[in-house]
Amino acid sequence: MQLTRFTDYALRTLMYLGLQTDRLVTIPEIARVYGISANHLTKVVQRLAQQGYVETVRGKGGGMRLARPAETINIGGVVRDTEDNMDVAECFDSANRACPMLPACVLKSALHEASQSFLATLDRYRLPDLLPPTNSANSRKLIARLMG
Amino acid sequence: MQLTRFTDYALRTLMYLGLQTDRLVTIPEIARVYGISANHLTKVVQRLAQQGYVETVRGKGGGMRLARPAETINIGGVVRDTEDNMDVAECFDSANRACPMLPACVLKSALHEASQSFLATLDRYRLPDLLPPTNSANSRKLIARLMG
Repeated sequence: MQLTRFTDYALRTLMYLGLQTDRLVTIPEIARVYGISANHLTKVVQRLAQQGYVETVRGKGGGMRLARPAETINIGGVVRDTEDNMDVAECFDSANRACPMLPACVLKSALHEASQSFLATLDRYRLPDLLPPTNSANSRKLIARLMG
Repeated sequence: MQLTRFTDYALRTLMYLGLQTDRLVTIPEIARVYGISANHLTKVVQRLAQQGYVETVRGKGGGMRLARPAETINIGGVVRDTEDNMDVAECFDSANRACPMLPACVLKSALHEASQSFLATLDRYRLPDLLPPTNSANSRKLIARLMG
């Protein structure tokens, strides 16, 4: 059971921005720190900007930052906003209506209930809960490690 | 967020066997009913047999059936037994230790907690909960639909 890479990158981008609140951060920097594709990350950042999680500043010296206080960013909400498919099993895909069980399928509602429990657990976390307190020794240590 | 196709097929195989308790069922039959690959299904059935969910009878007229009463088959348990990866996010993959956040990563424990909630919800379901009562009008109707 895995979240999409898209959601994974979105969460890690927000975590990085939550650690670096005093400056603008670029896509190549995040891609380098995490060792992930800048191309793929660009699409993630575009979505996060559309959804009001990050704001971007264009031009020389530009980059991105959180568009709102980290405390207002709920992790369950981010997953809902970035996972395109919460169908949980392929057989419920709207593109795949072949399963003859579907009209009587209780598995569908059981898996739906389970994914709601998954999200409800993440709803208890806000972005700062995933990070050491800003400007703490631990956050400085983490930033130093991230910067290599 | 999706379970693997392997788990999806395993659950649907068990549901089919749970409906057809009075006879042996073959892999080609299940593959045809669900419109899925018999090849892929063969691996799923092998695993279900190893794990004691189904038993197979070889030879002409052979096939498979549930190896134990449907009431003893817990859906959370099946998902634990068939999902190879409950890491939830790629960045926690043991093959991918590149993420510099990992030593301080609270996301990892939040996602682990969320996937435990997911499984705990499924632990409340046993195989018969996913099916109409055996020999009820609804189960006869469903079998008739499945048999096309």
